[in-house]
Amino acid sequence: MAYTAPVRDMTFLLREVLDYPRYGNLPGFSDAPIDLVEQILEEGAKFTAGVLHPLNTVGDREGCRRHDDGSVTTPTGFKDAYRQMCEGGWTALGADPAYGGQGLPHVLNLAFNEMVSSANMAFGMYPGLSHGAYSAIHIGGSDEQKQTYLPRMVTGEWTGTMNLTEPHCGTDLGLLRTKAVPQADGSYRITGQKIWISAGEHDMADNIIHLVLARIEGAPAGVKGISLFIVPKFLVNPDGSLGARNSLQCAGLEHKMGIHGNATCVMAYDDATGYLVGEANKGLATMFVMMNEARLGVGIQGLAQSEIAYQNAAAFAKDRLQSRSITGAKRPDLPADPVIVHPDVRRMLMEARSFNEGARAFAFWTALWGDLLHKSPDEAVRQKAGDYMGLLTPVIKAYLTDRGFANVSNALQVFGGSGFTEHWPMSQFMRDCRITLIYEGTNGIQALDLVGRKLASNGGRAIFSFFAEVDEFIAAHETDADLKPFVEGLRTAKGRLQQATMWLMQNGMSNFDNAGASSHDYLHLFGLTACAYMWALMAQAAQAKVRAGDADPFYVNKIRTGEFFLARVLPDTAAHLEKVQTGAAPVMALAEVDF
Amino acid sequence: MAYTAPVRDMTFLLREVLDYPRYGNLPGFSDAPIDLVEQILEEGAKFTAGVLHPLNTVGDREGCRRHDDGSVTTPTGFKDAYRQMCEGGWTALGADPAYGGQGLPHVLNLAFNEMVSSANMAFGMYPGLSHGAYSAIHIGGSDEQKQTYLPRMVTGEWTGTMNLTEPHCGTDLGLLRTKAVPQADGSYRITGQKIWISAGEHDMADNIIHLVLARIEGAPAGVKGISLFIVPKFLVNPDGSLGARNSLQCAGLEHKMGIHGNATCVMAYDDATGYLVGEANKGLATMFVMMNEARLGVGIQGLAQSEIAYQNAAAFAKDRLQSRSITGAKRPDLPADPVIVHPDVRRMLMEARSFNEGARAFAFWTALWGDLLHKSPDEAVRQKAGDYMGLLTPVIKAYLTDRGFANVSNALQVFGGSGFTEHWPMSQFMRDCRITLIYEGTNGIQALDLVGRKLASNGGRAIFSFFAEVDEFIAAHETDADLKPFVEGLRTAKGRLQQATMWLMQNGMSNFDNAGASSHDYLHLFGLTACAYMWALMAQAAQAKVRAGDADPFYVNKIRTGEFFLARVLPDTAAHLEKVQTGAAPVMALAEVDF
Repeated sequence: MAYTAPVRDMTFLLREVLDYPRYGNLPGFSDAPIDLVEQILEEGAKFTAGVLHPLNTVGDREGCRRHDDGSVTTPTGFKDAYRQMCEGGWTALGADPAYGGQGLPHVLNLAFNEMVSSANMAFGMYPGLSHGAYSAIHIGGSDEQKQTYLPRMVTGEWTGTMNLTEPHCGTDLGLLRTKAVPQADGSYRITGQKIWISAGEHDMADNIIHLVLARIEGAPAGVKGISLFIVPKFLVNPDGSLGARNSLQCAGLEHKMGIHGNATCVMAYDDATGYLVGEANKGLATMFVMMNEARLGVGIQGLAQSEIAYQNAAAFAKDRLQSRSITGAKRPDLPADPVIVHPDVRRMLMEARSFNEGARAFAFWTALWGDLLHKSPDEAVRQKAGDYMGLLTPVIKAYLTDRGFANVSNALQVFGGSGFTEHWPMSQFMRDCRITLIYEGTNGIQALDLVGRKLASNGGRAIFSFFAEVDEFIAAHETDADLKPFVEGLRTAKGRLQQATMWLMQNGMSNFDNAGASSHDYLHLFGLTACAYMWALMAQAAQAKVRAGDADPFYVNKIRTGEFFLARVLPDTAAHLEKVQTGAAPVMALAEVDF
Repeated sequence: MAYTAPVRDMTFLLREVLDYPRYGNLPGFSDAPIDLVEQILEEGAKFTAGVLHPLNTVGDREGCRRHDDGSVTTPTGFKDAYRQMCEGGWTALGADPAYGGQGLPHVLNLAFNEMVSSANMAFGMYPGLSHGAYSAIHIGGSDEQKQTYLPRMVTGEWTGTMNLTEPHCGTDLGLLRTKAVPQADGSYRITGQKIWISAGEHDMADNIIHLVLARIEGAPAGVKGISLFIVPKFLVNPDGSLGARNSLQCAGLEHKMGIHGNATCVMAYDDATGYLVGEANKGLATMFVMMNEARLGVGIQGLAQSEIAYQNAAAFAKDRLQSRSITGAKRPDLPADPVIVHPDVRRMLMEARSFNEGARAFAFWTALWGDLLHKSPDEAVRQKAGDYMGLLTPVIKAYLTDRGFANVSNALQVFGGSGFTEHWPMSQFMRDCRITLIYEGTNGIQALDLVGRKLASNGGRAIFSFFAEVDEFIAAHETDADLKPFVEGLRTAKGRLQQATMWLMQNGMSNFDNAGASSHDYLHLFGLTACAYMWALMAQAAQAKVRAGDADPFYVNKIRTGEFFLARVLPDTAAHLEKVQTGAAPVMALAEVDF
């Protein structure tokens, strides 16, 4: 069980595919020229592989323990690893310099997050959720709230959580019941029960800043009456020191299939002191800005689990001797050939590999748009970036986790019976990865968000902008003989996505169920097309190196892996298009009672 | 958490689709007219839902415990449930009357096995493995061996196991090292270590009859030197009473992702007394006959887990209130609509349902051929039956488990966050189901068996026979307006399977890696085509009822579910064909060292 962070692939993307240096004039980027980025990634690789990864199995086996007083102990080593993470400045990487952050580009933070999520996904959720809470306060909080909470969340001394779900409401937050009663001093008393609160209680930080959705007494019903509150575990004195223990506690830990190392808490708020973030009844808006960021992070978790599962499966396949190649012994010196000689084992490895590299490019490319959204001086660029972030976030969240999980399952399969035992790490990867399809909005919700909201927004501006960009690339490269299969694959995929989009525009409005019934396949068709575009960009960069005589096998392997994607993955676009176009009728034909 | 055995669907298949009564003149069938079969299935439904299913969670949570003396305690209630199973005669259902069995048709036994595997898969493996060992002795043993062991295996007083795998050899049995030393009395001394031995030790039966593959001293290397031995836990005296404890023991239990209720043992044989089954060095042949039977059983496990996961997901989707239908509130009397109103939830349910019903038909249809193989007086029928069993067994094993697992994962997804907790049963279904893709030959091995052995066997007689049967059906029904979409769907799928078959015949022989690289997609294309055929048969039967004025919604729902399969599942055949035809090049392009 080992993990090697894909730094080579990451720097290839930044340096050669996405031309990171051209953004050197933007804030944050100017502080992190590409050479420094490489150094940071190398350091991140050492930290995640050396400190976090050895604790992955420990976390799975030990899990978290809740004590009678409501306190929670994390697995052996987590506390110390978290301390090292803070000391290394990793929690501050992408945070605002105004509050002690390093203000580095989002894309760099995302790269580091991939490493963390590969090395130890359950651990990564503590700083991950904390960053979400940081973002919510950063977006919606008052100056005083920011000054009070952000600096110590940036150093990692305090962590944060997001409290949305209640037993009767997960996706449908309009149903939530946790109530907030205004106090004379401007604060609120928060009472209610929240469930599935990741990192809700633990022993790694001095304070935990809970962000809690609640309904102020007398607020409208439904989503229009939801407000967001800061509810710290320990109240903070005016001088910044910790004050009284707030009346909230972890009432229980969830027993889960995976991510055992993360404390998934039932949180009980009993007249706890809370502070309104932003305006009353506007809590969801802030939460959703934060949530979009979190959704990208979950997509990265899907990729990250696929990456480490692939690495382990490839190592096992080169080591495990079993049967001879069907084309004749490849290692007659050994009692049997390593199983990597078998084409169906290769198929599973190549599916994972071609996904990992394409999905990583897709995520990096999108993250760069996220940086441009906040940092570009050009309004047109910022608008396009905003359009893209809206359009692509649900695709990244759902496509990367659906396919990531499928790859983890295939990687387990490479191990044969060993994969099913807990002696090897594959079971944990699969059990951990399974949550990524669910949390931060199930993948079905992502697909509905894509077809129901993001596609139609601003008259389809975002998707047409994406099509125009792809068309431009195709037009610019269609005579490049070296790129021909990539351009043709992209053209076919994009054509199918366009057909599906037209179908949705014509049929999804007249009957919303048509949109809902095709949303899953449409999202996958989108993910495949986006990855086909990424593969074309990567092949272009790699071909340039090969043509220039660069002998590094990295480049030829990159092209070959892309060719696998074209031949063996992209054909799924045809099936997805056909399914999109069936509409809702076959899906909705049965009466509820007949299920 | 509940389970209702699909007796209605089973009797529909037997009575109306497969015309079971027409086989009434065959042995076994004559003892079980269709009315009796229905009664047996109803009793089986009661037993599995009432006795086995309540122990499913217990088995998962408690697991098995090994004690210092090597004995193993099964989960609370398993021993008593097994006693009830024996007393009910269920272990004797399909067994030979010459040894106390009931000799009922294989298809009936398979139907009962589906129920057992849905209700409690880990439990079902104890009698399941025992039946495998019974079959091996029945096929390969001497009369004396049969008289000694079979009657008490049929009553269930004794159970059996299959010992193939060793730490360094799973798929590649040619590597096995367990040795057998001939003794003067004709017995052998068996020494070696076997791993992953399901039901290898437990507390439910008086004796355990291990069937062990071993190499007689001086035997040829590789698969040509493997012999099969009976190695009982307790030696059996000439009068049938139990004698000395044999020198074998359970040296450890495997810690697994799922099927915790089943004891997966490391078995240590230390000069244990064993008895040769059949001829020396011919052990694999007997083992493979038994294994083909076991492979069908594993396919059924995949279906069974998909069925119970579907049932639970459907119940949850009707109960869980969350958000409003996108076409307007369906239950304005409630705070939100049940999630079954959402098209993407329906999609997941319908995918599972259309698979379950199609796969069940496929398995029943195949099992009937299995009966005909042994019981038909017509040699041509027996030949066709043998061809079909060979051809279809790997398809049933791999297609039903690959898709079954995907459905279980989707059913878990219907639960949202609840599905990821161990409070609900979905996690167990998924963890249990995952092994079915691996054991009794990984699904990759099944695919290779299909394209490398079964297709080519007898000049392709089996596959051409299948094509001819499908063509005949299409020709007979192409003018039936009611069946038109089913006939057209079948024609398209079969056409693609035929193209893929031609491609394989032309390219798989010149380069075996072409066959290996396309085997997975070819197998899935086959599974889809077989299910399309089944759906056409089922639609035909259901249409006949509807036309005759039968108002039972079962029939209309059957047709609608089939239409979903045509519209939303069958399009995958296009992608599979395209992938088959790419050949090995993109799959094998990278050097081993570059993974």
